[in-house]
Amino acid sequence: MDSCRVEVENIFLLVIVTLISVLQNVFFAQKVERECSNHSHTSAFERVSCANRNCMDAYPTFLAVMWCAGLCLSQAPAAFAGIIYLLVRQKYFIGYLGQTSQSTPGYLFGKRIISFLSLMCIVGIFNYLMGRYFGQDYKEYVETITGAASALLLLP
Amino acid sequence: MDSCRVEVENIFLLVIVTLISVLQNVFFAQKVERECSNHSHTSAFERVSCANRNCMDAYPTFLAVMWCAGLCLSQAPAAFAGIIYLLVRQKYFIGYLGQTSQSTPGYLFGKRIISFLSLMCIVGIFNYLMGRYFGQDYKEYVETITGAASALLLLP
Amino acid sequence: MDSCRVEVENIFLLVIVTLISVLQNVFFAQKVERECSNHSHTSAFERVSCANRNCMDAYPTFLAVMWCAGLCLSQAPAAFAGIIYLLVRQKYFIGYLGQTSQSTPGYLFGKRIISFLSLMCIVGIFNYLMGRYFGQDYKEYVETITGAASALLLLP
Repeated sequence: MDSCRVEVENIFLLVIVTLISVLQNVFFAQKVERECSNHSHTSAFERVSCANRNCMDAYPTFLAVMWCAGLCLSQAPAAFAGIIYLLVRQKYFIGYLGQTSQSTPGYLFGKRIISFLSLMCIVGIFNYLMGRYFGQDYKEYVETITGAASALLLLP
Repeated sequence: MDSCRVEVENIFLLVIVTLISVLQNVFFAQKVERECSNHSHTSAFERVSCANRNCMDAYPTFLAVMWCAGLCLSQAPAAFAGIIYLLVRQKYFIGYLGQTSQSTPGYLFGKRIISFLSLMCIVGIFNYLMGRYFGQDYKEYVETITGAASALLLLP
Repeated sequence: MDSCRVEVENIFLLVIVTLISVLQNVFFAQKVERECSNHSHTSAFERVSCANRNCMDAYPTFLAVMWCAGLCLSQAPAAFAGIIYLLVRQKYFIGYLGQTSQSTPGYLFGKRIISFLSLMCIVGIFNYLMGRYFGQDYKEYVETITGAASALLLLP
C-alpha cells in the first residue's frame, strides 16, 4: 500500500516550485504596476494587463494539478513538469508584450503540461485503487515510467 | 483523537473532483479561445469572457473550502458538494451565454454550497478542539450527520 | 527529523484563516454584485470591480505561500501573517472605493507579508535539508525566531 504522508520530505520540491511561481507572479505584477504608472501608451498597458490576467486565470488550475500529481504519485516528475510550465508561462508572457502589429498568442498555454499532470493524477488514483481492491501495487514501475515520460515534456 | 493524515486514501475523492474541475476550466477556456478567434460579434465574446472570468474568480475560493472541509471532517460529503458545485457552475456558464436580450445571472453563484463547505470546516475544527480540550469525540456522529445533510444540496 | 504530518492539529489555524479569507471574498463579491445591480454611476462599479479583481488575482498566490509556510515551518506565525494580510487587503479594498478624484492605490499590496511567508518557506526547506544531510536540526530555534519576527509585521 502506498502511504504517501505529507511530510516535508514528500513535498519540498513542490514547495520550491510553488515559491518560484510566486516570484514569477510578483514579477508579472510589477510589470503591470510599472506600466500602469507611466500612462505613455495605453496599448502597452492593455497588453501587459491582459497577459498577466491570462496567466493569473490559469494559475490556480496549475497549482491544483501539480500538487495533486505530486501527492498522488511522486513529487519529482510533478515538480519537473511545474518548472517546465513556468518556463512556458514566461515565454508566453514575453511573447504577449510584442509589437502592436503582431498577433497575440491565444488564451490557453501549457496544455501539454496540464494534460501530463492530470494523467499523473489519474494514474496515481488508479494505482491506489488497484492496490486497495486487488492487492497489486505497481507504484515503483509507474514512478519509473512517469519519470522517464516527463523528459518528453522537453520536446518543443 | 482524530488523526486525519493526508494519505491517498483520505484525499482521492477530492483529487478526482479537482481533476473534473480542471477539465471544466479547460472547457471554459477553450470556449473563450474559440470565440476569441472568430471576431464575428463582439457581444458573444464579451459574454463568454465575462462568464469565464467570474468562474475563475470564484475558483480558488471553492478549491480552498473544499479541500479544507475534506481534510478537517470527511472527504465524501466534501467531494459530493464539489460535484454539485461543478454542476451549478456549468449551468451558470451556459446561462451566461444566452441571448443578448436576456439579462445575465449575477456575479455570485453556488453560495449555498460554499456555505455548506464552510460549515463543514467549522464543525471539523470545533470537533477537533472539543476532542483536544474536553476529551469528547463526536466525529462519527458528525460525519453521519454531514453525509445526510449533503443530500439537502440536491434540493433546487 | 521534522515529521510535520498534516493532521488537523497542524493545520487548524491555517484552515481558520482560509475560512476568514473566504468570508472576505464573499463580502467583496457581494459588493460587486450590489454595485452591478444598481447602474447609477458606472465609475463606482468599475472601481469596485477593479478592486475585487486585483484582490482575486493575488488570492491564489497568498493561499499557496501561506499553506507552504505553515506546512514547512510552523503554523502559528503563518496564520498570524495571514490575518495581517487579510487586514491589509481589507484596507486596500476600502481605499480603492474612495472618491473618483482620488488616485487609486497600485496593483500590488501586501508585498511585505508575501515576502515574509516566502522567507518562512525557504527557511523551512533549508532547515529540512540541513537536518537530512548534516543531521543538524535547528527547528526549535527557527520557530522561536519566526514567531518573534512575525511581530515585526505589525509595524506600519
